[in-house]
Amino acid sequence: MADGNRQILLDRLPQGDKLGPEHFRLAEASVPSAGAGEVLLRTRYISLDAANRAWMQGATYRSALEGGQVMAGGALAEVIQSNVSHLAPGDTVFADTGWQDYAVAPGARLEKLPAANLAEGEPVTHLMSVYGVAGLTAYFGLLECGRPKAGETVVVSAAAGSVGSIVGQIAKIKGCRVVGIAGGAEKGRWLTDELGFDAAVDYKSPEFKRLLRAEVPDGVDVYFDNTGGAVFEAVLFAMKNFGRIACCGALSQYDGAPPAHGPRGIPGLIVTKRLTLRGFVVMDFDTQREAALKDLAGWVASGQLKVQEDIIDGLENTPAALIGLLNGENRGKRMVKVR
Amino acid sequence: MADGNRQILLDRLPQGDKLGPEHFRLAEASVPSAGAGEVLLRTRYISLDAANRAWMQGATYRSALEGGQVMAGGALAEVIQSNVSHLAPGDTVFADTGWQDYAVAPGARLEKLPAANLAEGEPVTHLMSVYGVAGLTAYFGLLECGRPKAGETVVVSAAAGSVGSIVGQIAKIKGCRVVGIAGGAEKGRWLTDELGFDAAVDYKSPEFKRLLRAEVPDGVDVYFDNTGGAVFEAVLFAMKNFGRIACCGALSQYDGAPPAHGPRGIPGLIVTKRLTLRGFVVMDFDTQREAALKDLAGWVASGQLKVQEDIIDGLENTPAALIGLLNGENRGKRMVKVR
Repeated sequence: MADGNRQILLDRLPQGDKLGPEHFRLAEASVPSAGAGEVLLRTRYISLDAANRAWMQGATYRSALEGGQVMAGGALAEVIQSNVSHLAPGDTVFADTGWQDYAVAPGARLEKLPAANLAEGEPVTHLMSVYGVAGLTAYFGLLECGRPKAGETVVVSAAAGSVGSIVGQIAKIKGCRVVGIAGGAEKGRWLTDELGFDAAVDYKSPEFKRLLRAEVPDGVDVYFDNTGGAVFEAVLFAMKNFGRIACCGALSQYDGAPPAHGPRGIPGLIVTKRLTLRGFVVMDFDTQREAALKDLAGWVASGQLKVQEDIIDGLENTPAALIGLLNGENRGKRMVKVR
Repeated sequence: MADGNRQILLDRLPQGDKLGPEHFRLAEASVPSAGAGEVLLRTRYISLDAANRAWMQGATYRSALEGGQVMAGGALAEVIQSNVSHLAPGDTVFADTGWQDYAVAPGARLEKLPAANLAEGEPVTHLMSVYGVAGLTAYFGLLECGRPKAGETVVVSAAAGSVGSIVGQIAKIKGCRVVGIAGGAEKGRWLTDELGFDAAVDYKSPEFKRLLRAEVPDGVDVYFDNTGGAVFEAVLFAMKNFGRIACCGALSQYDGAPPAHGPRGIPGLIVTKRLTLRGFVVMDFDTQREAALKDLAGWVASGQLKVQEDIIDGLENTPAALIGLLNGENRGKRMVKVR
């Protein structure tokens, strides 16, 4: 390769403070080569997720990050060089490349992304939004953990985000009343006017709890929680008997010191309201993935599900894109087009 | 009737303080008569439960109590006079009599307790312990919400109480390793030596968390929570991936002001460990009651399940019996023999 390998290093871990540009550093290395059983990948679109920040806090479903390393993250990538038989140059994969132009990865666990889900002219980025972790997380969390029935009231937090924006639309497809929680009036209008949510509530309003109650006068059947914290607590108190909470993330708690306390009402309200709370990670549903992708592709094709992507240009802007995501800048699935 | 009707009134509700004798008052009324569709009952054994205290805090699965009324509570009672066809004088029922010698109740929702569950010579009190709310709560909470598998580790809090003592024994019957959490070394010895628990941990020890971890080195598969609060938080952090928590009560939070905060780790640990938390009330499983009673009776008959009852004499001692229960005095199911 003539060019080098630009890398964004996680220079040092935040220590209970908010993530800022000072935690990252741009570096340049030479382009690596694939060894036996490995592939050389060129990253095309880097996925940005609240999970990137959660990994800095300690072990989650993956090991904690350490300072000084290339920042970890998934990306849509193109195979440049392959030493495994099931992948060839030009294939597209989703891989844990980290934030860099090129990465070498073991080939065994990578799979060529099936073009089958993409309709004629459908952008490749859909493989990382609606047909990727975001879409599948929304699908399985809502349908398997939340189990909404037509006519029920579904509330989703971080509703304008990559997962929340899909959760709300699937809940509408399933015949539910859908209330999205997001920050600011403009996001709320976007949810109702563009995505068809029945209502939106601004969690930044001093009147948040009252506004929420007004939108769910009979209570909440299903809550898809992306945030934890004060929003979680407010919805918990608004749950109906036999309600279900799908616990997907704790966005409010990733970017700063861990909270000293949890929400009130735990476990008392779980008992008196006979609630079920279930945590999940999308990989837990791998065996059901094909059926889910078929549903999602059908809804996209019919126009019932609008794919929302928020694409930032340039590898060098990846730190700012993540910091912005943690501050709620994005609409739908945020990613960085590497070059 | 020649005698009067002694009543224990909830004279005033505790206001964020601990329940004491000063909240109750003994009174005497005349014995009431049953009207159309009603029955007159003589209470024989009054059930004492943490729920009595929870009802004073506000609405739960029943309305909140008010000061000045006869203290609410369930009891095994004998039908004295009946204006319904399905009950006759001499029949035994479990009814919401309140803390008094006699009570009139609508007959429609009362059922004659089947003698079928009681073996020859088995005391009638078993209808209120192992075959009553305590036994059924333990059964359904553990088996339906906790879903333990043989070889798994089950932890139960308030393990020496009416529900906990049965939960642990059923978990042993199902082939689990069972760790009970209870206050004090003497209760712990009782759990292991008398009831066959594998281990007991004293939540009052300053070393509680370390002691718990030592008894569950590989983590907890199923936690049956009777207490909430600090004990809940400690077990939450010790849960294994895909663990289940049956939320049965919040004993630690009934007798005093409601806690200002909930446990740490909610909802973060629910997500990363993919936990399921499920709250329940025994009435939710009414349709499965007969099968449960058959199992329980079989285990009692075979000696695998030891019925633990803690019977206090005299209606006048009911307030002290409840206060003592809230302070952890009892072993197994506490009740008051009215006379």
